[in-house]
Amino acid sequence: MLTRLGLVVALTVLFGLAEVGAQTPSNAPAGPVPGVDAALIDDIVTGSRVLADFGVLDGFGHVSARHPTNPNHFLMARSLAPALVTADDIMEFDLDGNAVDPRGRSVFLERFIHSEIYRARPDVMAVVHAHSPGVIPFTISQVPLRPVYHNSAFLAAGAPVWDIRQDFGETDMLVRNAAIGKTLALALGDKPVILMRGHGDVTVGPSVKAAVFRAYYTDVNARLQAQAVALGGEPEYLTPGEGVKADATNMIVIDRIWNLWKLRVAALLAK
Amino acid sequence: MLTRLGLVVALTVLFGLAEVGAQTPSNAPAGPVPGVDAALIDDIVTGSRVLADFGVLDGFGHVSARHPTNPNHFLMARSLAPALVTADDIMEFDLDGNAVDPRGRSVFLERFIHSEIYRARPDVMAVVHAHSPGVIPFTISQVPLRPVYHNSAFLAAGAPVWDIRQDFGETDMLVRNAAIGKTLALALGDKPVILMRGHGDVTVGPSVKAAVFRAYYTDVNARLQAQAVALGGEPEYLTPGEGVKADATNMIVIDRIWNLWKLRVAALLAK
Amino acid sequence: MLTRLGLVVALTVLFGLAEVGAQTPSNAPAGPVPGVDAALIDDIVTGSRVLADFGVLDGFGHVSARHPTNPNHFLMARSLAPALVTADDIMEFDLDGNAVDPRGRSVFLERFIHSEIYRARPDVMAVVHAHSPGVIPFTISQVPLRPVYHNSAFLAAGAPVWDIRQDFGETDMLVRNAAIGKTLALALGDKPVILMRGHGDVTVGPSVKAAVFRAYYTDVNARLQAQAVALGGEPEYLTPGEGVKADATNMIVIDRIWNLWKLRVAALLAK
Amino acid sequence: MLTRLGLVVALTVLFGLAEVGAQTPSNAPAGPVPGVDAALIDDIVTGSRVLADFGVLDGFGHVSARHPTNPNHFLMARSLAPALVTADDIMEFDLDGNAVDPRGRSVFLERFIHSEIYRARPDVMAVVHAHSPGVIPFTISQVPLRPVYHNSAFLAAGAPVWDIRQDFGETDMLVRNAAIGKTLALALGDKPVILMRGHGDVTVGPSVKAAVFRAYYTDVNARLQAQAVALGGEPEYLTPGEGVKADATNMIVIDRIWNLWKLRVAALLAK
Repeated sequence: MLTRLGLVVALTVLFGLAEVGAQTPSNAPAGPVPGVDAALIDDIVTGSRVLADFGVLDGFGHVSARHPTNPNHFLMARSLAPALVTADDIMEFDLDGNAVDPRGRSVFLERFIHSEIYRARPDVMAVVHAHSPGVIPFTISQVPLRPVYHNSAFLAAGAPVWDIRQDFGETDMLVRNAAIGKTLALALGDKPVILMRGHGDVTVGPSVKAAVFRAYYTDVNARLQAQAVALGGEPEYLTPGEGVKADATNMIVIDRIWNLWKLRVAALLAK
Repeated sequence: MLTRLGLVVALTVLFGLAEVGAQTPSNAPAGPVPGVDAALIDDIVTGSRVLADFGVLDGFGHVSARHPTNPNHFLMARSLAPALVTADDIMEFDLDGNAVDPRGRSVFLERFIHSEIYRARPDVMAVVHAHSPGVIPFTISQVPLRPVYHNSAFLAAGAPVWDIRQDFGETDMLVRNAAIGKTLALALGDKPVILMRGHGDVTVGPSVKAAVFRAYYTDVNARLQAQAVALGGEPEYLTPGEGVKADATNMIVIDRIWNLWKLRVAALLAK
Repeated sequence: MLTRLGLVVALTVLFGLAEVGAQTPSNAPAGPVPGVDAALIDDIVTGSRVLADFGVLDGFGHVSARHPTNPNHFLMARSLAPALVTADDIMEFDLDGNAVDPRGRSVFLERFIHSEIYRARPDVMAVVHAHSPGVIPFTISQVPLRPVYHNSAFLAAGAPVWDIRQDFGETDMLVRNAAIGKTLALALGDKPVILMRGHGDVTVGPSVKAAVFRAYYTDVNARLQAQAVALGGEPEYLTPGEGVKADATNMIVIDRIWNLWKLRVAALLAK
Repeated sequence: MLTRLGLVVALTVLFGLAEVGAQTPSNAPAGPVPGVDAALIDDIVTGSRVLADFGVLDGFGHVSARHPTNPNHFLMARSLAPALVTADDIMEFDLDGNAVDPRGRSVFLERFIHSEIYRARPDVMAVVHAHSPGVIPFTISQVPLRPVYHNSAFLAAGAPVWDIRQDFGETDMLVRNAAIGKTLALALGDKPVILMRGHGDVTVGPSVKAAVFRAYYTDVNARLQAQAVALGGEPEYLTPGEGVKADATNMIVIDRIWNLWKLRVAALLAK
């Protein structure tokens, strides 16, 4: 699967095939967002692509960052599969989910996940929404997601499950407006991750690197926890105190794995 | 595995090796079906190859489409592994499973899966038959396949299990004639998917894209549901109402993932 | 993993690196076995490499064929990882496990698996020994391996578990002499597959294609059966009658998947 | 995933991108350790990269070897993802974990795992520390890791679980000083492998090949044992006597798989 996506990316770059059969004048890359450091945009691109490469994101899902100079705006790709996102696809949105300069580009229906979390959580600088395959079973189970090892220490703070049905009855499960986004942000509270019943999960963090790191290790943790549960008996999870300490260390050494991931994405492009 | 298939495809194209050791004058590609839009043929090819790339199809299985102008005919590849299907391999069949212009080409033994479903279900425009690895355990289990998340919302309509033994006793398990195909179509009823005991599954839809999407997400759902069941307790599946609404949304945004899959297949060919 | 092995193969061919750090004048390829059809040798090579590519074989395991004109001899590679086997590595052995023309080449310690089965089973024309990862759990479990679907219909004949400890006490688990091989062949009886406790499995067949097909689908079946068992309740396996009929059909259509596998191996070499 | 890492490696070599965004004058490769045979250094590189390729190591983890002529020193990479380690990245340390000639290079925080095991176990010539995904569930379970087949026979000697909390209370889970390393080495005793609760595992051996072989098969065994446990009933593990005998044989034939792994790593570099 990963090789395929690598080739997809390469083809996109070489032959401009990114939107085969779907490209319209009104939905095309429109160049970089003015006034934003390229490094931040690059983190969004790297995060989107590496999570697609790991299978955490499939054709859907998105990575965003709070605007570095305007905390009431955020940056996110136009509607596009995460494996295909480039710097020129990033758009700017306000906290009502309106595109600042749409130029006819399609936008993600579920941008309200992002806008409402940025509104409710001033400490959050980046948000990832995924249909993380490892996590889905925990979104419909009574078994709470808990940290099996230090890499996913942030889970020790708790990972609640939000159920759209509680406030909105039977829906298409999507966070398609601000009202739904607000209840999601409320359920997230001060946690780093929230599970969405029958849908996926959201991770947040003080940087794109942190939110992406958490999206990845939430998925890994879920898979490993499922195996630990299947062995029988109650697994010995990290304690809350261990979680706080190990997460602090993870945030310090995050560049070692982030740089490896940047190389993976560079390799995808070179292939 | 995926890389291998990509290379297989590339070799096929570059060196004409598609039928190494088996090619005979009487079983060779014979050019496009006259009078059928190339885009529809391309959807069949894309669906065959991407499902092989995902491991939903192995050396067996097939994707078909109802003929766009003659509803009593359908289009399907000659007998060939799905990873190798090209536009020139597509043949036309009537609803008795007879090839319209066989020219000596080998045809799939199980084409009656398709012919009888097209006969029984005027709304169905495409059919996929797979030995989907994730799904096989559910074909022999008392646990019904149910939707764990919105991507597989179509499963909320129910996914019955058909057992060939009920009407035909001990067989080689294959749908090798119209009589068997009729009981399968009857068991399918108005559902989008049916499981075949000890064999595989069939998904149908209003387009090739939809049937392929459902084949893929039926497999993914089965794997995730098995993990949810293993966690213990009763998982909280999508309700029928949620299923209807989420499936409608999926059908609207299907091009986003279909275009990604087209790029995957294009990359396979370019490799 | 698969890509790596493909590259390994390519490097081997291009740069003669096959025996990096281990090659000695006394253990090198020695050219084809005289008087044996190249197609049979190619089947052994294809089977070795495709099973390595699928992960059924790792650095160990072997594929052999009975000599086409001398039924008291068989053909098997010199001691070499299956992913690296070429036509020039195939040697000829008698039924005592002696190499006919050793020329100093290293031979597999466990060649007695093959020699004693060829001695006991005149109908067997090919043997595969694997440490098949899917199968290992069944070699140490009370749960018998049974056919979950038609592709592995041959399992309906039964897949006994042989335990070396029963006759030989605590050993290193290997079939390192003819006496051990004889008890394994006795336990195999007239079946197509036998499991070896804490070690692996052996599949046999009327051709290399059949033995390799069975090695592959034994592994796949084991993985799928484990998932079916984990769902709870007793799965509905193929009946013995279904097994006989479906296996007969499989043997008829085996070329479709074999040709796909030949293309995979050709692609590995071309990469 | 593997393909990606292969490309990463290739890019590193071709374009010098190894430290994209993180390279500083004070943390760069500094050439080979003087007075150490290149073959030993190559074993460390091969082990690091092949374990990363197999997913046993991710962005973290490390492989070390005791210095061949000074038993009070050991060799280990500077702080770098294992997939990226080259001969020029290997540094020399004393048994207090001090770098002999740091030249400003970053060093692994957890080097005390290695230093204290070399101090306590004169027979140990190599150490691997991994966050082995298959193993993590066993580090938090009451189910002990036991050998399911001959390849992991070394586990018959026992694989204890060390819990940092027992002596150090709530920590960030890391072996960040000599005192913690000493309790780990004490818990290891005379075993070949120790599990670390909520963290990972350590394997040791009489050579780099042996320690890497054990790291790989500890991971494989854990995955297969989990499947055997899930089948229900008590699996029939290798006995201690079988473990001793099979491990002795494994150590004799280890070059067959090591040479395959060397080819994999060579292929990664060539890609």
